Amino acid sequence: MKALVFHGPGERSWDTVPDPAIIAETDAIVRIDSATICGTDLHILKGDVPEVEPGTILGHEAVTTVEEGDRVLVSCITSCGRCRFCREGHYGLCIGGGGWILGHLINGLQAELARVPFADTSVHKLPAEISNEQALFLADILPTSYEVGVLNGGVVPGDTVAIVGAGPIGLAAVMTAKLYTPGRIVVLDVADARLEHAKAFGADIVINNGATDPVAEIMELTNGLGADVAIEAVGIPETFELCADIVRPGGHVANVGVHGAPATLHLEKLWIKDVTIMTGLVDTWTTPRLLELIANGRLDPTAFATHHFELNDTEAAYDTFADAATTNALKVVLSADRAQLTAKEQTEALAGTAV
Amino acid sequence: MKALVFHGPGERSWDTVPDPAIIAETDAIVRIDSATICGTDLHILKGDVPEVEPGTILGHEAVTTVEEGDRVLVSCITSCGRCRFCREGHYGLCIGGGGWILGHLINGLQAELARVPFADTSVHKLPAEISNEQALFLADILPTSYEVGVLNGGVVPGDTVAIVGAGPIGLAAVMTAKLYTPGRIVVLDVADARLEHAKAFGADIVINNGATDPVAEIMELTNGLGADVAIEAVGIPETFELCADIVRPGGHVANVGVHGAPATLHLEKLWIKDVTIMTGLVDTWTTPRLLELIANGRLDPTAFATHHFELNDTEAAYDTFADAATTNALKVVLSADRAQLTAKEQTEALAGTAV
Amino acid sequence: MKALVFHGPGERSWDTVPDPAIIAETDAIVRIDSATICGTDLHILKGDVPEVEPGTILGHEAVTTVEEGDRVLVSCITSCGRCRFCREGHYGLCIGGGGWILGHLINGLQAELARVPFADTSVHKLPAEISNEQALFLADILPTSYEVGVLNGGVVPGDTVAIVGAGPIGLAAVMTAKLYTPGRIVVLDVADARLEHAKAFGADIVINNGATDPVAEIMELTNGLGADVAIEAVGIPETFELCADIVRPGGHVANVGVHGAPATLHLEKLWIKDVTIMTGLVDTWTTPRLLELIANGRLDPTAFATHHFELNDTEAAYDTFADAATTNALKVVLSADRAQLTAKEQTEALAGTAV
Amino acid sequence: MKALVFHGPGERSWDTVPDPAIIAETDAIVRIDSATICGTDLHILKGDVPEVEPGTILGHEAVTTVEEGDRVLVSCITSCGRCRFCREGHYGLCIGGGGWILGHLINGLQAELARVPFADTSVHKLPAEISNEQALFLADILPTSYEVGVLNGGVVPGDTVAIVGAGPIGLAAVMTAKLYTPGRIVVLDVADARLEHAKAFGADIVINNGATDPVAEIMELTNGLGADVAIEAVGIPETFELCADIVRPGGHVANVGVHGAPATLHLEKLWIKDVTIMTGLVDTWTTPRLLELIANGRLDPTAFATHHFELNDTEAAYDTFADAATTNALKVVLSADRAQLTAKEQTEALAGTAV
Repeated sequence: MKALVFHGPGERSWDTVPDPAIIAETDAIVRIDSATICGTDLHILKGDVPEVEPGTILGHEAVTTVEEGDRVLVSCITSCGRCRFCREGHYGLCIGGGGWILGHLINGLQAELARVPFADTSVHKLPAEISNEQALFLADILPTSYEVGVLNGGVVPGDTVAIVGAGPIGLAAVMTAKLYTPGRIVVLDVADARLEHAKAFGADIVINNGATDPVAEIMELTNGLGADVAIEAVGIPETFELCADIVRPGGHVANVGVHGAPATLHLEKLWIKDVTIMTGLVDTWTTPRLLELIANGRLDPTAFATHHFELNDTEAAYDTFADAATTNALKVVLSADRAQLTAKEQTEALAGTAV
Repeated sequence: MKALVFHGPGERSWDTVPDPAIIAETDAIVRIDSATICGTDLHILKGDVPEVEPGTILGHEAVTTVEEGDRVLVSCITSCGRCRFCREGHYGLCIGGGGWILGHLINGLQAELARVPFADTSVHKLPAEISNEQALFLADILPTSYEVGVLNGGVVPGDTVAIVGAGPIGLAAVMTAKLYTPGRIVVLDVADARLEHAKAFGADIVINNGATDPVAEIMELTNGLGADVAIEAVGIPETFELCADIVRPGGHVANVGVHGAPATLHLEKLWIKDVTIMTGLVDTWTTPRLLELIANGRLDPTAFATHHFELNDTEAAYDTFADAATTNALKVVLSADRAQLTAKEQTEALAGTAV
Repeated sequence: MKALVFHGPGERSWDTVPDPAIIAETDAIVRIDSATICGTDLHILKGDVPEVEPGTILGHEAVTTVEEGDRVLVSCITSCGRCRFCREGHYGLCIGGGGWILGHLINGLQAELARVPFADTSVHKLPAEISNEQALFLADILPTSYEVGVLNGGVVPGDTVAIVGAGPIGLAAVMTAKLYTPGRIVVLDVADARLEHAKAFGADIVINNGATDPVAEIMELTNGLGADVAIEAVGIPETFELCADIVRPGGHVANVGVHGAPATLHLEKLWIKDVTIMTGLVDTWTTPRLLELIANGRLDPTAFATHHFELNDTEAAYDTFADAATTNALKVVLSADRAQLTAKEQTEALAGTAV
Repeated sequence: MKALVFHGPGERSWDTVPDPAIIAETDAIVRIDSATICGTDLHILKGDVPEVEPGTILGHEAVTTVEEGDRVLVSCITSCGRCRFCREGHYGLCIGGGGWILGHLINGLQAELARVPFADTSVHKLPAEISNEQALFLADILPTSYEVGVLNGGVVPGDTVAIVGAGPIGLAAVMTAKLYTPGRIVVLDVADARLEHAKAFGADIVINNGATDPVAEIMELTNGLGADVAIEAVGIPETFELCADIVRPGGHVANVGVHGAPATLHLEKLWIKDVTIMTGLVDTWTTPRLLELIANGRLDPTAFATHHFELNDTEAAYDTFADAATTNALKVVLSADRAQLTAKEQTEALAGTAV
C-alpha cells in the first residue's frame, strides 16, 4: 500500500510500504477514507518530537472503513479500556498501551490502510447522516479544544472568554466555546489574517497583540478585572504568560498549546489571585457528544476544510498546510480514491491476511 | 489603649495609641481576648509587604468580645457581603472594601481594642462550648490550609497527599487533610525538627528533601506515578517546582505559600500531564464548618498553641515566634489581662465614644 | 398611592393605600416603572397560598427607580446577605428575614411605590443599555427556569432535554436551556396553542401528551433510553410522574412547578435507575449573569411581553393574564405613567417621609 | 462441582452441578476462596426478584483465584468496558451485557467455581497485604453504601448525616461516611439490637424511631433545620418518606434501599425545600480506592464478619443469616476447603476444559 512516511527531520515521502497486519486480537485493520494533517505532524517533521522513529507512517486523524463495512472515526487517542486512567475517562493518560500512539509510536493514518489497536474502545461508528468531512475533525482538533480548552477552562454562559491564538486549535476553541454561550469571545493573535478567520468563526472581539497592549484592552473590556477564562492555543511561553496576565482573579487558564520550553509563572502576583491553571492532552471522551451535536445540526466543523486533495497527493497537501501563511489553509482534507484498490485487495487487506 | 505598632522594616513596639472609633455604621469595636502572630506579620516586619504603612497596628487573628457581650472570632478576611465576589463566597477577593485589610491596610488586632469593618459579615459568634484557644487558629491558619490547600487540591479518601513544608501552614494542611481520610500523608521539609512536628500531627511518611531525592522517593511510593495532590506550604520557587515534579498525571497542585518571586513552570513537561494548579488567598467561607467540627470533637487546633503570653508581652511573643528554629514555636497565644481596663474604660471603648 | 390589593380568595382591587415607609435602615423605597403578574399571583387569588393575608399588595416582579435615581431590578427573592443560606448563595432559603416575602408576607410591587427590605443585597442596578422590558422578566421567571430547571437539571451540550409544560415557566426553560446547546429540546403539553409558543421559542420537537403516548415517543427518540434531563414546569402530580417516566437511567429530573399535592414516586422502578431529582425555589444568584447575557445580545426575554397595560390598568391586565387560554397571553407588562405623580410627590415618597 | 442453587421461592439447596465453562473469550473461570450472602439473596428466595430463574446459582460477592494464580475480588457488578455507560464509569447501568448479572441473570458465586464474564474489566487483583476477609465485603456492601449513600449524598466534613436503617447496608454507610468526617452520624432504626451495632460502628447518636418521634429529635439536634444528608438503608416507603421529612432545606436524600413499592413524595412541601434525591445501583467504580484504604489501614471491613462457615455449609450459613434477629448476624463468611479438590480437578476446572 501507499503511505506518508517520516524519514527524519525535514524528510517525508509517499512511499510503497507493506500492508498492516493484525498483531493483537484487539486490533482492527481499517481502510482510510478521509484523513487530515495536524500541526503536530509539522512539529514531528521539524524534529520537535524525537521519539518518532524514522520509517514511521504519520497521521492520527481519519475517517475509515472497517472489515465489517462500518464507517468509523479513528480517534487520535487510543484507549486500552482497562487501565486505571481509561476507567476514569482519562484515555489520553492510558498506561495500558494506548494514549497518543498513532503516527507517533506506531504507524499512523496517512495511508491507504492502518492497524488500529484496541479498536473496540478507540473508534466511533458513524451514523449515516454524518459525512466524512463533518466527522474528520473530531479525530483530534474539536475534542482537543473542547476538552482541554473549553471544559478545562470551565466556560459558563455569560463568561468573557479570551482565546490566545487563532490557528486551527484556537478557532476550534471559538467554535466549541460557543456551545456554552459566553457573553463575549475575544481572540488575540499577531496575524490579522488569522484574526479574520476568528471573526468568521464567531469571535466577538479580536485583538492584534502585536500591535496593541492586549492586557490594557482586556482590562478595559472587563472593568479592570480580566477575562473569566483564558485559553492558550499557541504553545510558546509568551502566550501562556499573556493568559496569566489577562485572567481575572478567580478565573481559569486552560493550556491547549503544545510547549517545547518552560514559561515563567509569576507567583508573586498570582499567589493571591485565586487562579486555576490546567494543562492537558485530549482524552476524546467527548467525541460521542460532539457527534450527536453534529447529527442534530448544532455544530458544523466543515468550515475548517479549506483545501481538498486526493490521498495520493498527501505530499502536496503537506506543502499547502505547512505554508498556511500564504495559502490561508486551516485544515486539508485527504480523500481516498477507491478505484485504486481492487475489491480483492481491499478484502485481503482488511482481513489482515495480505501481509 | 496599648497595641503592637509597625514602625517600618525591622521596627515594632507595644505603644500607647488612641482607642479605635466607629467610622462606618457597619463597623464594630471589639475587645481582644486572645490574639496570635502570623508568619505574614514577620514578612511585614522584613519589609516584604510594602503597602503596610508605618504606624499601622499589626495582627489579623483574634478572639474578641463585642459590645453586646458576645464572644466572636474575627476572621483575617473582611467581607463587605455585597460585592460580586462576596456574593460568590470569594470573600478574599472582596472589592467592596474588604479582603485582607486588618493589620495590613488598616489597624489590626494585636491590641487591646480594635475596629472591625463589616462586622455583620466578617465575625463569627462562638458557642459556649468552644474555648478561645480552640477558636483562635480559625482566624487564619486552619481555613487557609483547608481551603487553599486541601479543598483546592481536591483531596479525596485514599489519596496520596504530599505536603511540602512543615511549618504551621503545612501542619494545618496535615490536620485538615485528615478530614478526608487520605491513604497517605507525606510531608517534605529540609528541617528534621519540623518533620517531627509533622509526624506528631499525623503525617504517615516524612521526607527530608535536603537529604534525599524527594522525587525518587515519591515515585517509589506511588508506583512511579506521583502524588495525587501536592500542597505547597513554603512560598519559594523551589518548593513550588518540587510540587510540580512530584504530582501524578491528572493530579492537583495547590499553592498555599506566599511568594515573592516567580517560579519556572516546565510546560514542556506539564502540557501533556493533565495537571491542575491552583493558587488562592483564603476566603474563610469554611469557618462555620470548622467551628462545628471543633464543637463536635472532630478537630482540635490547640496543638498549635506551643507558647503563651500576656497580651502586654506581645513583644516577647514576637521574639519567641520569630526564632522558631530555636524555640520550636508553632503558634503563640496572646491573652488579655482584663484587670488592666476599668469597667468604665471597657464600656466607653466598646461604645466607640472614647476617642 | 395606588396598588393592587388582595382581599381574600377571588377578591382583588386597585385601591388607594398609604405610601410605604422605611422601617429598617436596610430598606429602600422604590418607584415602580414596570411590573408584571406571575402565575403565582393567580394561585394566591385562588386561595392556594393561605399565608397571604387579606390587605396585602401583590406582586414580586418589577423594574423600579430608587431615590438616588438609579434604575434597579427588584428580585422576587429578598436576601438578608448575612444568614447561613445567603452566605452560601441560597437566597431563596434565607432565614434572616428574606426569601420570597414581597407580595406574599409583606406588601409587593404591583403598586406605584414599594418598600424593599435588604435592598443592598436584593436589587440589581440596570445598565443604560438594558431596557425595562428586557430586564423585567429577570425578576422571577428567567432565573427560576434557569436555576431550578436548567442548572439543577445539569443540562450539557448535546443533551436531550424534555420540558413538560409550555406555559411561561416552560418557555423560559426552553430559552435558558438553549444557553447550553442541548442536542434536542422536546416540549410536552396538552394544549396545541402552547406547543406553538414552544416552537417559536426554539423547541425542536413538540409532543401533545394528551393526544399521544409521550413515554413511547420519548423512548423512540432516544433509542429506548429516555431524556437526559426532564424539567417539570406545571406543578401537578401527573406531570411530575411523567418526568420520572421519561428520564433515562442516570438522568436528572428538575422540578420547577409549584405543587399543591403529593406525587407517587415509583421507587420500585427508580431505585435501580440512578436518577437525580431536584426541587427548588429560585435563589436569583444568576441574575447578574443573565443581565450580562442580555447586555451582550445573547438573550432577549422581550418575547414574553405579549400584552401591555398602564399600571393603572392592573385589573384589566389580571383579566387578560388569567384568561391566557383565550388571550394567548404569556406575560403582561404594566408600565407606570409618570405624569400621575407630581415631582414633589415623587421626591417625598422616595424619601420615605410622606407616610 | 457444588453450588447453592435457587429452586424457586423458598427453595434452595447445595447441589452437585456441572462445572462452569468459558463461553466468550472475555470470560474467566475462577475458584471461589471466600464468599458471602447478601440481603438481596434473601429477597430472591422470597420471590421478590422474579427474573431469577429456578436453577440459577446464587451469589454475587466473592474473593477468588484465577487460572494464573492471582487472587481477585469479583465485583457484584460486571462491566463490559465498552458501552456508553461503562465508558462513563456507570458500570451498574452497563448495556453491553454486564450490570448486576451474577447470581441474578447468570450463575453466581456461591459455588466452588464460577464463570465471570468480562473479567478484565470486572475483577480486582488483590495485593498480598489484604486478606480475603478484608476484601470480601468490597464485592458489594461497602461500595454500595459508599457510592449510593455517602457519595450520592454528598457528605462533607462537619455534616449531620442521618442514616435510616442499621442493617449491614446502614452500617456500611456509617463506616464509609466516616471517611469524610461528618460532624455527627445519627442512625435510626426500630430495633435496639441493631442500634447497638450502629454505636459499635461509630454512630454518634442513635434513635429508635419506633419508640420516639424521629423528626422531632432530628430537628432538636439541628436547630430546627434537619439533617444535611439522609441515607435510606431499608427499602420500604415509610423509611424513604422519613428521610424526606428529616432532611434540611438544601439537603440531600440518598436512597440505598431496594424497594418493592412506590413511596409518596410530598411535593407540596418539598417543591420549595431545594432537596436533591438520588437513587442508584452501585457501579463499584470506587473499589480500587476502597482497596487502597484497606491497604493503608484506613478502613477495616472485617467487623462485618460475625459468623464463619465452610463453603460446604452454605445452607447453614443461609439459616444463620436469614435469622439475624436471633443470631445477631451481620455478614457470614463462607470459606472454601481446598482439600476437597484435587490439584488436577482444580487445573482442569480453571482451564475451562472440564465441562
